[in-house]
Amino acid sequence: MFEAAELGRKVSKQEFAERERDLQTRLLAAQQRLAEAKFPVIVVVSGVEGSGKGDVVSRLHGWLDTRGIQTHAFWDESDEERQRPHYWRFWRVMPPKGTLGMLFGSWYTQPIVERAHDRIDADAFERELTRIVDFERMLTDDGALLVKFWYHLSKGEQARRVEEDGKSRHGSRLSHLAKEYAKRYDDFTEASSRALRVTDTGNAPWYVIEAQNRRYRDLTTGVTLLESIERRLERDEASRPIDIRSSAMAPDTEGASITVLDRVDLAQQASEDVDKEIRKLQAQLHRLTWKAWKKGRNTVAVFEGWDAAGKGGAIRRVTAGIDARLYRVITIGAPTDEERAQHYLWRFWRHVPRKGFVTIYDRSWYGRVLVERIEGFAEHHEWKRSYQEINDFEEQLTEHGVVLLKFWIHIDPDEQLRRFEERQNTPWKQHKITDEDWRNRDRWDAYKLAINDMVARTSTHAAPWTLVAGNDKRFARLQVLRTFCERLQAEL
Amino acid sequence: MFEAAELGRKVSKQEFAERERDLQTRLLAAQQRLAEAKFPVIVVVSGVEGSGKGDVVSRLHGWLDTRGIQTHAFWDESDEERQRPHYWRFWRVMPPKGTLGMLFGSWYTQPIVERAHDRIDADAFERELTRIVDFERMLTDDGALLVKFWYHLSKGEQARRVEEDGKSRHGSRLSHLAKEYAKRYDDFTEASSRALRVTDTGNAPWYVIEAQNRRYRDLTTGVTLLESIERRLERDEASRPIDIRSSAMAPDTEGASITVLDRVDLAQQASEDVDKEIRKLQAQLHRLTWKAWKKGRNTVAVFEGWDAAGKGGAIRRVTAGIDARLYRVITIGAPTDEERAQHYLWRFWRHVPRKGFVTIYDRSWYGRVLVERIEGFAEHHEWKRSYQEINDFEEQLTEHGVVLLKFWIHIDPDEQLRRFEERQNTPWKQHKITDEDWRNRDRWDAYKLAINDMVARTSTHAAPWTLVAGNDKRFARLQVLRTFCERLQAEL
Repeated sequence: MFEAAELGRKVSKQEFAERERDLQTRLLAAQQRLAEAKFPVIVVVSGVEGSGKGDVVSRLHGWLDTRGIQTHAFWDESDEERQRPHYWRFWRVMPPKGTLGMLFGSWYTQPIVERAHDRIDADAFERELTRIVDFERMLTDDGALLVKFWYHLSKGEQARRVEEDGKSRHGSRLSHLAKEYAKRYDDFTEASSRALRVTDTGNAPWYVIEAQNRRYRDLTTGVTLLESIERRLERDEASRPIDIRSSAMAPDTEGASITVLDRVDLAQQASEDVDKEIRKLQAQLHRLTWKAWKKGRNTVAVFEGWDAAGKGGAIRRVTAGIDARLYRVITIGAPTDEERAQHYLWRFWRHVPRKGFVTIYDRSWYGRVLVERIEGFAEHHEWKRSYQEINDFEEQLTEHGVVLLKFWIHIDPDEQLRRFEERQNTPWKQHKITDEDWRNRDRWDAYKLAINDMVARTSTHAAPWTLVAGNDKRFARLQVLRTFCERLQAEL
Repeated sequence: MFEAAELGRKVSKQEFAERERDLQTRLLAAQQRLAEAKFPVIVVVSGVEGSGKGDVVSRLHGWLDTRGIQTHAFWDESDEERQRPHYWRFWRVMPPKGTLGMLFGSWYTQPIVERAHDRIDADAFERELTRIVDFERMLTDDGALLVKFWYHLSKGEQARRVEEDGKSRHGSRLSHLAKEYAKRYDDFTEASSRALRVTDTGNAPWYVIEAQNRRYRDLTTGVTLLESIERRLERDEASRPIDIRSSAMAPDTEGASITVLDRVDLAQQASEDVDKEIRKLQAQLHRLTWKAWKKGRNTVAVFEGWDAAGKGGAIRRVTAGIDARLYRVITIGAPTDEERAQHYLWRFWRHVPRKGFVTIYDRSWYGRVLVERIEGFAEHHEWKRSYQEINDFEEQLTEHGVVLLKFWIHIDPDEQLRRFEERQNTPWKQHKITDEDWRNRDRWDAYKLAINDMVARTSTHAAPWTLVAGNDKRFARLQVLRTFCERLQAEL
């Protein structure tokens, strides 16, 4: 969930200054139109301790006309509040139509804190999250625009900030709490990633924002909020279906548009004895897959990647290590007529393996949020809601005991070009290159953004993404095989 | 939940014959249009054992063109199925677009059976229900039309049928199971009413159909299915928002249009010593409300009823029994500007009482599904989804420990006319009668249907409706006071 928010995105002082004035002008204009509109904007401001939630809200106050904003923090429940059902405290501060309410923490704080401290069990936590989903749906059904921000810091960075903060206000209640939270960083991360995963719905998506660089954090928040309001106003005027972006709108500067792919070290190369290593891993995989068969555990492996990234080669190295009776490779191309007459997940459900077997998907359900998104084959609201549908689907697999592996094989544009040209110039490889490949290549940046969203929204504890460094094919195969064996070993 | 399906609704042989031909013609026409359309129809056929689910489906097969239908029953999981995640068995039989799939029991059977036998706990059951809601939303988001029928029999009737059935097929597996189920009638009712309550959503509503009279059962099923398909086809052609009826479409005959209100015995009269009895109950109420205060339990009482049914008088008899410091009466009229700028539930949330106090709502949130529905103040999709919103709201109250009482004071049209005329002819009562009252009176039948839906969808175990016989005012007051005291006594 949070990998995509530890990338070191940043905005320079100069870039910030250049963009701030324009942003403020547009925010004020949007706010004026909002006052006439028939819906409230509810901004949820959440995230790890020390990420500067208060500073973001102050900045927004500086940009906006404060007459149309109310801000509420939810500290300990008051006497008044404790005596009523829990949600009463939120109902009492709901912003009226035409205004903007900023809620610190909101309905998320208590469940996450309780769960992180193990004061409520997993079931009670799930119940709370279901309640949140219902509550938010009720608000958005009624027309509210919900914009939810989660500010993330890496473990090290949080510890550093809490330390720093502690020095400036000794013994204050806040710094005491913050220290306490920092100690439980991992528990908090687990609880909050689960909360975000369950409540990241099409109508009320989360925007996870990297909070390390303050200028990046504030500018991204401002632009995302602005975009959300503007799109909603447009929708109301044109009565079109709602069109919510799935990523926070980072400023269009180099330091701010880093994606998870930029953190893959493509310079990695296989050492000389790679073939020996590969054979060793294949033998291990052979043993492990038989062991899985005996234990009745099935395995699903998903291979995605750029055109010419070497998916096929990697899959062949994997299958070479598995008894032919135990695996099946499903190649996903254009859907058949029969498949087109069903929900898009149907074609994947039908191939879910029986106990003990391995199914390898060469491309997969992720096409929905990649090619279908980019090419417009799926409507915006369709692919937007499919992150959650995919997470639900994968959860059903992993809950049933399926070991789920997901590989994205990454290469850079230069390497792709080299391989395209090689294919075109090699007679027996020409069939592998089509006009479509060249078209996709032109949309590299759009795909990059889509891949970043995909990893951010579907990399879960039970089904993490592995980003494979693919410029050196042999290194990539080694990484795939090694991950495959490690995961199986850990799960069996 | 099931009160509204134990009314003895029926259709005579002659009425059935008269309507069947027309229904079949229209069903076939709708089915033809469906074949061209871009959505599947998924019919869920569920209900108590012995209610004749198989007979209904056979009847539908007789009416429809069988080429466009697939029927699936979910018996014990096959070997194949057990080895995959549970929902695989449902995915494999999903009807393609343009066709109709009839699913016996479906995803509801297993959770309800497991819960009724106490083989899963309440938390696991809730998780299953949440999964169902997500699954059904995914289907309807994708365009599927989901029509869910629940066939109900009273306890006595089920026992009779199982007995009868047992005689005809001795020792068969079915009859053995049916007997087993009949023994656990109450457990099944509890589990299934919870399941229906949680999964009765705006996009996939339940139609609870009384199964005692076979002709009523089949005709109502046919008409409801037809209506659902026709409305959906119209919507697609006109691209209007979906417009789902909230009640099953009973045939328009006398025996079939009985509502819960027809089962209220309006001939009941107070005995002569009613005043003494009322004073006794008021004294008891005084003690009980102080006891509730000491225990920190709050009470919310909702009064709804026909115009001139005597709500005011009944409320005054209740408040006369409570210390003035402990209660508050909230009269709900037209919303204020401030209230109009919020979600419709906001105005009720703001008055939720603190611990130990009593809040009486003179009219309430139920206006949403009564006057707002009938007068068109709320859009169809708005009031339709509010049954669930209301149930969620009330659940938050009762979970917090609020004792929730809901009264509908019923009178018949003649009695109302008498009271209207009396008001008009009595100078000091004239202000109590307005043109609106006469207008509402003209819509008596529409209100009756709305009240029936309201009781069917919002009478829950923790917050049941009490239907008060109001023709004799003094009897009504006695019934209200007695119910009030009994509920408090049971809860404290």
